[in-house]
Amino acid sequence: MVAGEIKALAFDVFGTVVDWRTTIIEEGARFSAATGVAVEWGHFADAWRGRYHPSMERVMRGELPWTTIDGLHRLALDELLPQFGLESMTEGQRAGLNRVWRRLRPWPDSIPGLTRLRARYVLTTLSNGNMALLVDMAKYARLPWDCILSAELARAYKPDLAVYRLAPTLLDLPPAQVMMVAAHQDDLRAAHEVGLRTAFIPRPLEYGPDAAYDSTPDPSFDLVAADLIDLARQLDA
Amino acid sequence: MVAGEIKALAFDVFGTVVDWRTTIIEEGARFSAATGVAVEWGHFADAWRGRYHPSMERVMRGELPWTTIDGLHRLALDELLPQFGLESMTEGQRAGLNRVWRRLRPWPDSIPGLTRLRARYVLTTLSNGNMALLVDMAKYARLPWDCILSAELARAYKPDLAVYRLAPTLLDLPPAQVMMVAAHQDDLRAAHEVGLRTAFIPRPLEYGPDAAYDSTPDPSFDLVAADLIDLARQLDA
Repeated sequence: MVAGEIKALAFDVFGTVVDWRTTIIEEGARFSAATGVAVEWGHFADAWRGRYHPSMERVMRGELPWTTIDGLHRLALDELLPQFGLESMTEGQRAGLNRVWRRLRPWPDSIPGLTRLRARYVLTTLSNGNMALLVDMAKYARLPWDCILSAELARAYKPDLAVYRLAPTLLDLPPAQVMMVAAHQDDLRAAHEVGLRTAFIPRPLEYGPDAAYDSTPDPSFDLVAADLIDLARQLDA
Repeated sequence: MVAGEIKALAFDVFGTVVDWRTTIIEEGARFSAATGVAVEWGHFADAWRGRYHPSMERVMRGELPWTTIDGLHRLALDELLPQFGLESMTEGQRAGLNRVWRRLRPWPDSIPGLTRLRARYVLTTLSNGNMALLVDMAKYARLPWDCILSAELARAYKPDLAVYRLAPTLLDLPPAQVMMVAAHQDDLRAAHEVGLRTAFIPRPLEYGPDAAYDSTPDPSFDLVAADLIDLARQLDA
């Protein structure tokens, strides 16, 4: 198998390692309990996340100057709040809610899986999240990374190939010794284009129990694992 | 005191956190024991390190294209070996010896001091060492960083101010909330120029017991600590 050649694993984070939807719903529910303002937080989370790809595409098309994910989340938040009856949120409440992306909770298998994998491989993030967001998230959730790499370092967003090239370049490894780990097939197909190995971790609950999710893997992927513990097992870690 | 404002600590690494000279001498002694080739490894370590600043200055003057510290160490190594009767070292031996900079040992206070500091602050490297070198060193020596930042990300070497600006920019903090920690006064004076706070950790043994070392701190420094445990104490960590 591929395990003998791999030296480093590069992880997508939102959805692959952490469960953004459940965390936003739970933080929202606490806000509602404290303020008495009822909100469908699942719809809110989906609407917020729904602006993620379009806003990155606006940056990549040059319609927006370079803006970090923290900044894009905040732009989207300010647009969404009136739609959910939350236009009276104060600046402090908005800034606090926007930082929920730095407090996302890992999937139950993430910490045990990463801990095993780290004993054998270099573990880095390779996320569209900005550096500060990823550093704070790792500290908050105790994610055991060896290195934080972000699309911010390339000033481009995945699936721009410049982002994938960061990992082999900065880790000083041939692309074939780096494996991209993600729950999103387009992410892995782009990683494959620059010569990285690929591991697909289906996360069918990422968008909630009612969302459609394509878990049939592209035949180009090197590995498919049920979760990060299964990935550790398959990679002999 | 300054502790209440600081959110992140940015560390110089070679000399401040790890003891390059002793590690090189001990690895060299093992090479001599295995091969029967006698070398004054203390002189060798000093000569190798002595090429560090001049080689970075050649890069910054444009006389060399961008070259990582791994690359600069290797250029210096190939030049030095004949002077120490080691010109017959094989390519594999040279590559292995060059990677000693990824296996440097922490000073005795480094791990306990960093571990305490990490409970309260974000800890990042801010080193001229390249990313791969710093990641491997951290993994080898179990240095508990939250983030690895390298001059490589600015394609410039300290004391170029672009390197110091990486820390507040990528950690999304005002410069005054980041403290540079170093054993070298020029490093701290440059950090001060971009508004970082500064902590001086004298390491009088960095260049060996016979070397001169200026431990009288520049009055601009915010803190002087005897070692990283003392720094943790002074920063209430």
